[in-house]
Amino acid sequence: MTTITGSSVVDLRYPTSKQLDGSDAMNPDPDYSAAYLQLFTSDTDLTGHGFAFAIGRGNDIQAAAIEALAGRLIGRDVDGMCDDPAAVNRELLWDSQLRWFGPDKGIMHMAIGTIMTAVWDLRSRREQRPLWASLLALSPAEVVALVDWTYIGDYLDPGEARELLEQRLPDRASRVASLEAEGIAAYTTTPGWLGYDDDKLVRLCTEAVADGFATIKLKVGADSEEDRRRLALAREAVGPDINIAVDANQFWSVPDAILAIENLQEFDLRWVEEPTHPDDMVGHAEIARAVNPVPIATGEMLASPVMAKQLLQLDAISVLQIDATRMAGVHDLLATMLMAAHAGVDVIPHAGGVGLCEAVQHYAYFHAVALAPEPSRMEIEYVDHLHDQLRVPVRVDNGRYVLPSEPGAGTAFTPETVTEFSFPEGTEWATP
Amino acid sequence: MTTITGSSVVDLRYPTSKQLDGSDAMNPDPDYSAAYLQLFTSDTDLTGHGFAFAIGRGNDIQAAAIEALAGRLIGRDVDGMCDDPAAVNRELLWDSQLRWFGPDKGIMHMAIGTIMTAVWDLRSRREQRPLWASLLALSPAEVVALVDWTYIGDYLDPGEARELLEQRLPDRASRVASLEAEGIAAYTTTPGWLGYDDDKLVRLCTEAVADGFATIKLKVGADSEEDRRRLALAREAVGPDINIAVDANQFWSVPDAILAIENLQEFDLRWVEEPTHPDDMVGHAEIARAVNPVPIATGEMLASPVMAKQLLQLDAISVLQIDATRMAGVHDLLATMLMAAHAGVDVIPHAGGVGLCEAVQHYAYFHAVALAPEPSRMEIEYVDHLHDQLRVPVRVDNGRYVLPSEPGAGTAFTPETVTEFSFPEGTEWATP
Repeated sequence: MTTITGSSVVDLRYPTSKQLDGSDAMNPDPDYSAAYLQLFTSDTDLTGHGFAFAIGRGNDIQAAAIEALAGRLIGRDVDGMCDDPAAVNRELLWDSQLRWFGPDKGIMHMAIGTIMTAVWDLRSRREQRPLWASLLALSPAEVVALVDWTYIGDYLDPGEARELLEQRLPDRASRVASLEAEGIAAYTTTPGWLGYDDDKLVRLCTEAVADGFATIKLKVGADSEEDRRRLALAREAVGPDINIAVDANQFWSVPDAILAIENLQEFDLRWVEEPTHPDDMVGHAEIARAVNPVPIATGEMLASPVMAKQLLQLDAISVLQIDATRMAGVHDLLATMLMAAHAGVDVIPHAGGVGLCEAVQHYAYFHAVALAPEPSRMEIEYVDHLHDQLRVPVRVDNGRYVLPSEPGAGTAFTPETVTEFSFPEGTEWATP
Repeated sequence: MTTITGSSVVDLRYPTSKQLDGSDAMNPDPDYSAAYLQLFTSDTDLTGHGFAFAIGRGNDIQAAAIEALAGRLIGRDVDGMCDDPAAVNRELLWDSQLRWFGPDKGIMHMAIGTIMTAVWDLRSRREQRPLWASLLALSPAEVVALVDWTYIGDYLDPGEARELLEQRLPDRASRVASLEAEGIAAYTTTPGWLGYDDDKLVRLCTEAVADGFATIKLKVGADSEEDRRRLALAREAVGPDINIAVDANQFWSVPDAILAIENLQEFDLRWVEEPTHPDDMVGHAEIARAVNPVPIATGEMLASPVMAKQLLQLDAISVLQIDATRMAGVHDLLATMLMAAHAGVDVIPHAGGVGLCEAVQHYAYFHAVALAPEPSRMEIEYVDHLHDQLRVPVRVDNGRYVLPSEPGAGTAFTPETVTEFSFPEGTEWATP
């Protein structure tokens, strides 16, 4: 019997604020961070990896929460956990004492997600395939059984979810073949950070087109006229055939969002992302109605399937941007993708930061094969940044994500990054 | 100059699960807990106190989050902080790195609330009056300036909020006189915990009436027929003139809630509390429409004013149950009470646990005097439990909360409780 023998949780922080990479209207100085969990087993060749992404301060608290939960798993049978991950998921999500800290949101919820990601990483490694392939190996009934329907069954019931999965079964082989040949389109946020000057903006836009990206995204929000100026520069640099999306990172109130988006309408935006507070579902619906047909997008801070359900019920978004580490891992994300497919909204995952591209691509592949009404509409965010900190860096070729074949969930960091970027004891931080 | 010189944060846990006090459909075995902060100052007679309530596991993580934030305040000028608490509030809520862990929800948000409560406790102690009196000493313009309107101004703008406060100014003296004479009605949850047998239920119901309570609340949810049986017993015990409310503690899905509430309609319920997931605003609205006119209540797990706003926009509730430690303290609660008054819904605070009665009564008094359309409709939850753990225990006399006159926010625990119930080193836990 293989058992969980121990765990390691480290607070990884990268000094990204020094370069203003990742700066936007709400996050002027992020230090990309990961609270990184390794679950060790009695099989020395088998370790499970998970992480929660953050942007600096507080990552030690996130790490402490993960460590407390990981302690519960010590001594457990790995086969048992991997064969029935829904039992672990349910145990953690419905632990009434932990649930008090949410429910289903914040640090405790992201800690549960980290644990569940590590459990699924173990499962995929045992199966010797990438997480996306482990998910695709499940029957529709097995997928449905992984989801907690308690609070979302009124929008999509398990029977409908199973039918949805079954409907796509005949297409799966051709969809996988297409993904193996062409991957999924990456879109790039690299040119658009607010901290960059005009020359850098234009240069990076031009490079993005040359690199094969079909969509670029610019950060907006702090200054409406400045946003228009930068959008005009970007449009001139990329030409008429490239999609431009914008991201306000929650900067606006609901009425300000409506005004600001109307003011940007001439730029034919692919979507407007995070126009206001991510919990304001009613507000997103109001914005979407007012600026129709400009597509509204959100999701990277969406805490739970219950929140996603309401955005969909209210027709508040056209693009759902799932994130690999915000919800409580695989089970929450399956629930959310099923509801998005039911609603017919585009799933275009959030990524960037550190490790998010590597982790979220697996969900995107599953969605593209098993659920998306039109997989060709899918894209995944991409920032060319810190990928060498992961053991299996994401591969993007000519503007497209390349399907990974390595076993696991894409969540293993290198030993070197732990030595260098552990906070505050790593060589990067301890050295003056 | 008085400065913050240090802090102490302890993980207090009370072994309430042993008696099944506090058991309900979702929380079978709570150990009432408080992550308790003391902010020490260079004036040895002046300490600020705050806490976040929880029910056991994870309280160490909550304490660690509070400790990390408290560290930022060391060395600061107490007068400056107390004169402009909105600056501290804004600094913490809009710290972009911390905000990532919410925004505005979960452990980090409750940690900010604990800090803000301690800052207001300091302010009230300096003013030598209870928090409710400190709040009533503010002009309408000053109250409005304490609120962050960014994401709620579309529902209630600062000008309307000020008018609301100004409208009630002529009534304030008589309202205070009435509160001094009569306090605010307490309602009791003591008889209704699911873990109690019929004899205990009936005995406690009878005692509640004898003790002067006009409303009792029963926990429901797990078994519909059993709920009907217990409600019939309770109604028989209390007679026709006492209000009975029920609390499902989020046990139901939206359709199950509608069925279950229809099944209980004959009992003339004062309200039905937490029918489903607290984040499901759309679901609460659907339930409220379906079971109209049965009043729907929620709030003890409502994370932020943005969430409260949507419940009110959607006409999803008739009773808003503010909690002293769930939101980020005074500023969030002022925002929420202003919106509730604007909507005309009843504010009937959540309390019980440990310290919640002592803390939340101050907000209730402010609301009753400065905002409530009809203060006589107000009640505050009351459980006769653990009050001796606080330095100034709440006083309830003949079913009514008695206005406290002692300085501060009601958030100071006794030194003895720290010695006894600190986890895991306190005498209660360390002794086998």
